[in-house]
Amino acid sequence: MRRTLYDTEHDDFRSAFRRFLEREAVPHTERWEESGLVDRSFFEAAGRAGFLGFEAPEEFGGLGIADFRYNAVMAEETVATGTAGDGFTLGNDILAPYLIGLTTPDQRERWLPGFTAGTLIPAIAMTEPGTGSDLQAIRTTARREGGEYVLDGTKTFITNGAQADLVLVLARTGERDGRGMSLLAVEAGTPGFTRGSPLHKIGRKAQDTAELFFDGCRVPAGNVVGEPGAGLRVVLGNLPRERLSMAVLAVAAAERALALALAHCRDRTTFGVPLGAHQAIRFELADLHTQVGVARVYVDRCVQALVDGELTAEEAAGAKYWTTDLQCSVIDRCLQLFGGYGYMEEYPIARMWRDARVQRIYGGTNEIMKEVVGRAVVAGD
Amino acid sequence: MRRTLYDTEHDDFRSAFRRFLEREAVPHTERWEESGLVDRSFFEAAGRAGFLGFEAPEEFGGLGIADFRYNAVMAEETVATGTAGDGFTLGNDILAPYLIGLTTPDQRERWLPGFTAGTLIPAIAMTEPGTGSDLQAIRTTARREGGEYVLDGTKTFITNGAQADLVLVLARTGERDGRGMSLLAVEAGTPGFTRGSPLHKIGRKAQDTAELFFDGCRVPAGNVVGEPGAGLRVVLGNLPRERLSMAVLAVAAAERALALALAHCRDRTTFGVPLGAHQAIRFELADLHTQVGVARVYVDRCVQALVDGELTAEEAAGAKYWTTDLQCSVIDRCLQLFGGYGYMEEYPIARMWRDARVQRIYGGTNEIMKEVVGRAVVAGD
Amino acid sequence: MRRTLYDTEHDDFRSAFRRFLEREAVPHTERWEESGLVDRSFFEAAGRAGFLGFEAPEEFGGLGIADFRYNAVMAEETVATGTAGDGFTLGNDILAPYLIGLTTPDQRERWLPGFTAGTLIPAIAMTEPGTGSDLQAIRTTARREGGEYVLDGTKTFITNGAQADLVLVLARTGERDGRGMSLLAVEAGTPGFTRGSPLHKIGRKAQDTAELFFDGCRVPAGNVVGEPGAGLRVVLGNLPRERLSMAVLAVAAAERALALALAHCRDRTTFGVPLGAHQAIRFELADLHTQVGVARVYVDRCVQALVDGELTAEEAAGAKYWTTDLQCSVIDRCLQLFGGYGYMEEYPIARMWRDARVQRIYGGTNEIMKEVVGRAVVAGD
Amino acid sequence: MRRTLYDTEHDDFRSAFRRFLEREAVPHTERWEESGLVDRSFFEAAGRAGFLGFEAPEEFGGLGIADFRYNAVMAEETVATGTAGDGFTLGNDILAPYLIGLTTPDQRERWLPGFTAGTLIPAIAMTEPGTGSDLQAIRTTARREGGEYVLDGTKTFITNGAQADLVLVLARTGERDGRGMSLLAVEAGTPGFTRGSPLHKIGRKAQDTAELFFDGCRVPAGNVVGEPGAGLRVVLGNLPRERLSMAVLAVAAAERALALALAHCRDRTTFGVPLGAHQAIRFELADLHTQVGVARVYVDRCVQALVDGELTAEEAAGAKYWTTDLQCSVIDRCLQLFGGYGYMEEYPIARMWRDARVQRIYGGTNEIMKEVVGRAVVAGD
Repeated sequence: MRRTLYDTEHDDFRSAFRRFLEREAVPHTERWEESGLVDRSFFEAAGRAGFLGFEAPEEFGGLGIADFRYNAVMAEETVATGTAGDGFTLGNDILAPYLIGLTTPDQRERWLPGFTAGTLIPAIAMTEPGTGSDLQAIRTTARREGGEYVLDGTKTFITNGAQADLVLVLARTGERDGRGMSLLAVEAGTPGFTRGSPLHKIGRKAQDTAELFFDGCRVPAGNVVGEPGAGLRVVLGNLPRERLSMAVLAVAAAERALALALAHCRDRTTFGVPLGAHQAIRFELADLHTQVGVARVYVDRCVQALVDGELTAEEAAGAKYWTTDLQCSVIDRCLQLFGGYGYMEEYPIARMWRDARVQRIYGGTNEIMKEVVGRAVVAGD
Repeated sequence: MRRTLYDTEHDDFRSAFRRFLEREAVPHTERWEESGLVDRSFFEAAGRAGFLGFEAPEEFGGLGIADFRYNAVMAEETVATGTAGDGFTLGNDILAPYLIGLTTPDQRERWLPGFTAGTLIPAIAMTEPGTGSDLQAIRTTARREGGEYVLDGTKTFITNGAQADLVLVLARTGERDGRGMSLLAVEAGTPGFTRGSPLHKIGRKAQDTAELFFDGCRVPAGNVVGEPGAGLRVVLGNLPRERLSMAVLAVAAAERALALALAHCRDRTTFGVPLGAHQAIRFELADLHTQVGVARVYVDRCVQALVDGELTAEEAAGAKYWTTDLQCSVIDRCLQLFGGYGYMEEYPIARMWRDARVQRIYGGTNEIMKEVVGRAVVAGD
Repeated sequence: MRRTLYDTEHDDFRSAFRRFLEREAVPHTERWEESGLVDRSFFEAAGRAGFLGFEAPEEFGGLGIADFRYNAVMAEETVATGTAGDGFTLGNDILAPYLIGLTTPDQRERWLPGFTAGTLIPAIAMTEPGTGSDLQAIRTTARREGGEYVLDGTKTFITNGAQADLVLVLARTGERDGRGMSLLAVEAGTPGFTRGSPLHKIGRKAQDTAELFFDGCRVPAGNVVGEPGAGLRVVLGNLPRERLSMAVLAVAAAERALALALAHCRDRTTFGVPLGAHQAIRFELADLHTQVGVARVYVDRCVQALVDGELTAEEAAGAKYWTTDLQCSVIDRCLQLFGGYGYMEEYPIARMWRDARVQRIYGGTNEIMKEVVGRAVVAGD
Repeated sequence: MRRTLYDTEHDDFRSAFRRFLEREAVPHTERWEESGLVDRSFFEAAGRAGFLGFEAPEEFGGLGIADFRYNAVMAEETVATGTAGDGFTLGNDILAPYLIGLTTPDQRERWLPGFTAGTLIPAIAMTEPGTGSDLQAIRTTARREGGEYVLDGTKTFITNGAQADLVLVLARTGERDGRGMSLLAVEAGTPGFTRGSPLHKIGRKAQDTAELFFDGCRVPAGNVVGEPGAGLRVVLGNLPRERLSMAVLAVAAAERALALALAHCRDRTTFGVPLGAHQAIRFELADLHTQVGVARVYVDRCVQALVDGELTAEEAAGAKYWTTDLQCSVIDRCLQLFGGYGYMEEYPIARMWRDARVQRIYGGTNEIMKEVVGRAVVAGD
């Protein structure tokens, strides 16, 4: 089905970004997977090329373009080239609305030039060891003392955690009868802010994921991002965009897995004929092709809805869980078509399989997504 | 997700057709289900109101509008009102391309006025007792004898078979080294054309479905529709539209089932709270809502592709099987939410359940659809 | 896999019962489906042949044999012969523990001879229009007045409801701070006991299912079955056996559906070869065969556990939902293999399909089963 | 459901083996995963303790016990302790029938003492880079030259490949019009036999898996195991046992995953209550519990059938694919219940997830299993 989402500018952008990835990311991916870190110089190269924080005003190094279709193009190309750009796209997809939309002029001045240049790697820290997807249960506190907040608590599963120069930390600040939370920007090097050893994940091995500790960490009151006490509301307001970015990634990954499997089934011979000549395999490919095609149409429509300002929280939640479930199912079935090779890490399908699994978990588990959708549906929203 | 498929004219048409169904079909549906036949007067009322053969030129009683979105509106409203319109919409969805697009001026003169007036009920007869979805295996023959064809064979599962005034019969006419087939229009009352007693189906009980017998049945050569010997190609060329009409029906049915189930889960109390307040039920509703929403976006995109002349055979096949599988799964799960009431025929969900099952079978079984898609995918089309 | 459940006596019993069904049930099934009732004379024939209430002591016309394997044999043969014996086996499977195990000597004297002779058709009435599977919510009351209870309320979905000579009604009698319930045996003809018109179900059409009304219906206190106030506990205690009987039926039905489909796939030719020669069909048959084989081993083990007095409530609940889900899935897939014929009521597979659907609903919906299992699992029982 | 498979001796054996694993394997597993190899000393310790080759006659260091239930006990305990014993149990489960049942007195003399002592690590090499599960397509050849065979070819995905002291290699020896194959025992150090660098698998990281190369490798004719030319038949005859061992492993793994998840759902609190108190989670646990329970009953029955000499090739194939599909599905769903922790390698559920995936691939892919079952079913075997 012909896609109708993109215009010529997006196509041009895609070509440029693809060339960038092939030059700056593809040759290093293997090494990044081994070290568990993306090179800082890669962020800087991306910054120089204009791929970071393009939503920021030009005066801060951005392009002033707020069009999520560019984010979608980047997600698709990252997947297509098999580069582990997760920590990389995090800034554009998730942090940008905070850093650009909620900041004071002073904060923009301090952070945006670095963000768009790739010299300031940002992170956002919500999840805690005891909370999972339940943000209401956050225990990290930030006690106001004069012109500062004193931050105490632990955050976990933080993408870019080890390398981040600036971490937005969601903490209880106690407004509104104690229920208030705020987002505090903690800069690397702030006393009382330490990081755990890297977490060993099943997949996404190039992406740095860490635990962060705050122990009497003093953060200037001027580092609060957004309205004090309204942190949870702000976070919830940004979730649809975050979740849609996962859906975009999911469908792109499903498409790539299918393309790999299809090529394999055309090339590989078993029992004297190509794999794809066996009817059961052909039916499998037909079903994968159809499902991925459905998902492509659907997620493109969701991106358009986000661009049009129409995507609701429950639509984003539905898109997140449905596409990531599909992604894992499609990749698992594609891997199977590779036989023993599918289990070998040197095959891209194997990496895609272990990388995909976390998509059903982070950004709110898919169970939480169903709760979000279910409540809206039952209430008749 | 806001639908973007329809314009104002489609909305107006929808309202008019809804009123028509509520007046002319809803009060009679129960009786039609019992008798196994839709009243001929209903066809005539539809003809008078302009709902039959609107693709035909105005001189033949049509509106000259070839826009499948009107067909889609009709399918949706038929489902929404729970009226058994299958045999009714067959003419617009499946026969119109034959009767309007392939006919000679003389044939149009003879058949289109009746078709648009609802006085000529059409049918198309392809399936045979021994063939199923394998059209290549058709055994009905039409032997040329002078200015006539002598038709011999049996057709089965023919919608409108008992009532049809004109039946397009696919038969072997032997061109192209014996492989040629042609479509012969057989008029009711032609000697040698008889009909079996009505077939008792699990569902779709108002729709007349019959076996047709041709025994030395002489059909004028002037009744061949389309190029002689090219019947199979013509049929195959029209299949995408036919299959998409099933997909449209499928998604509309899934939507209605969900709406019924949702209303039930809001009203019905178990264990002291509304059904929808139980988390497991809420998750079920969330998943149904999400899946149906995906299908809605997808089938609308397919309809637009058909209107734009872009829908391929494999896309239509994929849409047919994926949406009808979904339809059956969604309705089955919705029925379950009704508990014992779901098994009682007086509940619409029960009827929808038994009516839906055939969608995965006719128009080419869903297995055949996977074969169609699979071949194209493996070949790289 | 060789079955190890049965001994020679069971095999002999099976042959005798099969002959009985072929003589007394098979020739009448079509008519019973049309009338919505099994002939009373069939119950009487079964009584004469010793197939009713065989658990009862010999003095009351039984055989004094309490071995659920005989019940299982009967369920299997009923399914294998396609006879609609549901209302018929209800007595042995569900009522027997009440009528034989909980009754007073006087009650046995009054009811057991008729039960074993087939002249007294029993029923049990628990479900109410507003309660579904939630027995705690029952509203039917039985107010003690002297030597009688005055029964008021409505029961629905009652198997054998229209024909029953004796109905065990679960009603609130108010012991234990108002929570007590009792089972009252209401005899046909008791003033204040009326029956609704037959319920039209999607399937199981020979089985009479009715709504029962009790309006100031006076029942002698001597008709309370079991300890007054302990009705709910008694019912809950008998549920495992009831639910296992559904599981036995489910697996037998899945086996029969597969056998029918397999025969069809060997006989039927498409695209020039038998259906079973197509790889996708062969895989489907392989999967159905394997799943049905697993279910057979499992349900046989459950029957043995019941016979050994070991089957827990959660095991029975698990067996009920897992096997009935499987039954519906297997039959649905088998029906698909028949193509258009699968949708025609004259084909047994079509009837099996519509008959099966209720299994996931009655006897406690499959959702309730998961609740039962889930609570036990989480609690660590 | 109470298990009936084992006797007291099996229980005693289980306790002893569990203690052995806890002492000799558990403390080293982490290190073995990192190095990609199990210590040779572990094999030797197992040999000393009597856990290797116990089917061998006592004169060769075995116990003369041929009872697959002991193999099943070992598989279960290996899984329960989370020790990476795959390469370890390979000898007992797969090699024993070859080394003990097919060998000449001279071969036994040479190999069995080492096998039972753990000083001779065996492997079997069937799969080739181009063949996958299609053994008929093997290209490795062994040309007879005098008293030797000259072996040429490549084998891949060979468990224990890097460490093996003796490898049974399936090769074409050309009997029976060129179709004959034979099993040649190649000893480590034989000129022309080399090994590739270790294959990096997604999981099963302690298990050594390698590619083996044979280049003009001369093997004495006295090293042919079993009848020359009958190698394929011998291999096919041993497949049921091999496949059942995978099924046993699968069900044990599913049980362990569920136990881990259950403990987590009791301990872990979200939204103020234990995870297991959420109905959707409880339903999930109920379903997992039920499915795993079914699989347990089923695979125990299969083991008994193997012990009784009754397990057919298609039953073993069905058991292999059904249980390994279940294993992967159960573990995947259990992992999800852990949220983010499930994606961290330090959690056993994460390792189980990546370790499980290969089960659906090796030993004949699950698609091949369906082909095996399907052919038998359609043929009516």
